[in-house]
Amino acid sequence: MKQLALGIVALMMMTPANADPTATGDLGLVIERAKGSVLLVDQSDRAALARIEGLGDLSHASLVYSPDERFAYVFGRDGGLTKVDIVTRQIANRVVQAGNAIGGAISDDGQLVAVSNYEPGGVRVFDADTLELVADIPTDSKTIGLVDAPGRRFVFSMWDTGETWIADFANGAPEITKITDMGKNPYDALITANGRTYITGLFGEDGLTALDLWADNPKPIRVLPGYGRGQEEMPVYKMPHLEGWALTDREFVLPAVGHHEVLWIDAETLTETGRTQTHGQPVFAMARPDGRQVWVNFAHPLNDTIQVIDSVSKQVIHEFSPGPAVLHMEFTARGHEVWISVRDANKVVVYDTHSFEKLREIAADSPSGIFFTARAHRTGL
Amino acid sequence: MKQLALGIVALMMMTPANADPTATGDLGLVIERAKGSVLLVDQSDRAALARIEGLGDLSHASLVYSPDERFAYVFGRDGGLTKVDIVTRQIANRVVQAGNAIGGAISDDGQLVAVSNYEPGGVRVFDADTLELVADIPTDSKTIGLVDAPGRRFVFSMWDTGETWIADFANGAPEITKITDMGKNPYDALITANGRTYITGLFGEDGLTALDLWADNPKPIRVLPGYGRGQEEMPVYKMPHLEGWALTDREFVLPAVGHHEVLWIDAETLTETGRTQTHGQPVFAMARPDGRQVWVNFAHPLNDTIQVIDSVSKQVIHEFSPGPAVLHMEFTARGHEVWISVRDANKVVVYDTHSFEKLREIAADSPSGIFFTARAHRTGL
Repeated sequence: MKQLALGIVALMMMTPANADPTATGDLGLVIERAKGSVLLVDQSDRAALARIEGLGDLSHASLVYSPDERFAYVFGRDGGLTKVDIVTRQIANRVVQAGNAIGGAISDDGQLVAVSNYEPGGVRVFDADTLELVADIPTDSKTIGLVDAPGRRFVFSMWDTGETWIADFANGAPEITKITDMGKNPYDALITANGRTYITGLFGEDGLTALDLWADNPKPIRVLPGYGRGQEEMPVYKMPHLEGWALTDREFVLPAVGHHEVLWIDAETLTETGRTQTHGQPVFAMARPDGRQVWVNFAHPLNDTIQVIDSVSKQVIHEFSPGPAVLHMEFTARGHEVWISVRDANKVVVYDTHSFEKLREIAADSPSGIFFTARAHRTGL
Repeated sequence: MKQLALGIVALMMMTPANADPTATGDLGLVIERAKGSVLLVDQSDRAALARIEGLGDLSHASLVYSPDERFAYVFGRDGGLTKVDIVTRQIANRVVQAGNAIGGAISDDGQLVAVSNYEPGGVRVFDADTLELVADIPTDSKTIGLVDAPGRRFVFSMWDTGETWIADFANGAPEITKITDMGKNPYDALITANGRTYITGLFGEDGLTALDLWADNPKPIRVLPGYGRGQEEMPVYKMPHLEGWALTDREFVLPAVGHHEVLWIDAETLTETGRTQTHGQPVFAMARPDGRQVWVNFAHPLNDTIQVIDSVSKQVIHEFSPGPAVLHMEFTARGHEVWISVRDANKVVVYDTHSFEKLREIAADSPSGIFFTARAHRTGL
């Protein structure tokens, strides 16, 4: 009887949600930007499971997952860092760590969460368990393009000074390596899935700049120096997201700045291999996980449309209109389906990526970013 | 009170294990080949959580995971297909589907589980939910090298006839495409992580054979036609595993058959780019997920040793002896740690892949294959 009595107490302390056994490999969170909430979704059931509220200003929010796919760390525009427990469906912890944040990353061992800030500039690093401050790295600049790299490292770039810093936490206190001359006003960056190549997009000059993080002393490598907003004739409605760069079999696909096209770049030589004309100014160009297709969405006012490009022929093979304000796409881990957020229709729509058939619509309040838990297992996401 | 009473009944039906909320992203199973059991492990805690018994003959066993990272499908040598629930830590279902099985795969949507058989030959496909037979594909041959490919497809090869078949389940009943002239006695195969290239190893002649699954009509492509067991002078103690092929940044690493070396092959041209001399006949050559290192174990009698090769310099940078009969290695999803099964020491040993420091030893009964749940999100694993 003693065992049973203890059991009852344990049961009373649980929410209904966690009385059921839960596996987390096929779950995800959708940012509801207007409400300051996240919607917990199940990929296999193509369903919303719960709404978790109270996350502050989620315009331009992003998040990363703990290695066990239980906790999400949500980076809000207002500097809020919120730890969400997707098993109990509750906020586990929340700190407001700065006045204006721009994104974050989690170390490869899952123990450190880093946030990059506009105001004040710099990077702050937190204990993933407690959200206590572990390191404060002032940079004297707005700080952008923060990513994780293998070996408890974070890499980030400075808008004002054109530097990229590598912060190595392998031995406790961070060792900082500073690379200068990355170019004028880097505005975003990405790291390749293998953690080798870091690439910044430049706002202040043409082209992009890459770093080979496997080199003993990484040096800036200019990419497409003759291409960019310098030759721009059209207004830029929205700077494309570099997270949206697709890596197909052997090429990157880069949303062109301002132009109605995507650029193809050889992943080894970092030289241009082709261009594909598109419906509008691309925002995200995302590769299906097998790299065979690239899905592209567009800036306002052409943001009701998706185009699908075949990565072998580089031709548009499918075009459709999910609805007004298509903001983000997320593929299932093995690419058989894609979820698309349609902000102004207040829904997320699920499609089969082989037949292009619409499979389900799920109600969501002004949805923007969609983040599936499989990101926990990947570098730079 | 009614609600509480129902709660008590629900609680009584649960095992202690699943009274706690569970996230499954950092779990794994270790095959205990002698006992016919699997050991449930937690990567973050570096600990064994539970032993699940009654899986039959697990010599040469492997397994795949459901997309939610809750169920493992274990393929036993005796033809047993066992569905293990890692949340409740119980066998959920088990069928003996043939007399002698050699491996299996799960479709990209997680709905179909396929098993390839020696006796009788052929492939049987089961409903992942119920384990009911969905399709029986006789091949008139021992069937090997079964992998999943994007679009509800399975690819497998015939030892006796030298054919590779693609079974496409996109529209319900399988459509079979047969490719002949793959070479004499294919004995194993792999598919690249993007699902594009399928490569068979040949026992009956030199070299290997590749297929480009993105081609409209895939044709056999000969790889290293002048290399293989035909020029063999040493006895082959164990045929290397092709699952053990590593893909580094731009190269495959292939355990040479019989020789004390690994071969490097350009991933695009499929031509040889180098060789690295090793301690013994390699069995598995596995890339750390970032591709920067390749870890190699060896055939009897040199199977107490691991060598680590740098994929840029192609030089051995570290060598150590975890203990007698090192059978398998599994990296954490982002590569910061590796788990190594040491069968004859009855333990699994965990190492930091950057410092090479030993972090933990975990008791296990004759451990062989180690399978982390992150495999659920990848093609061909």
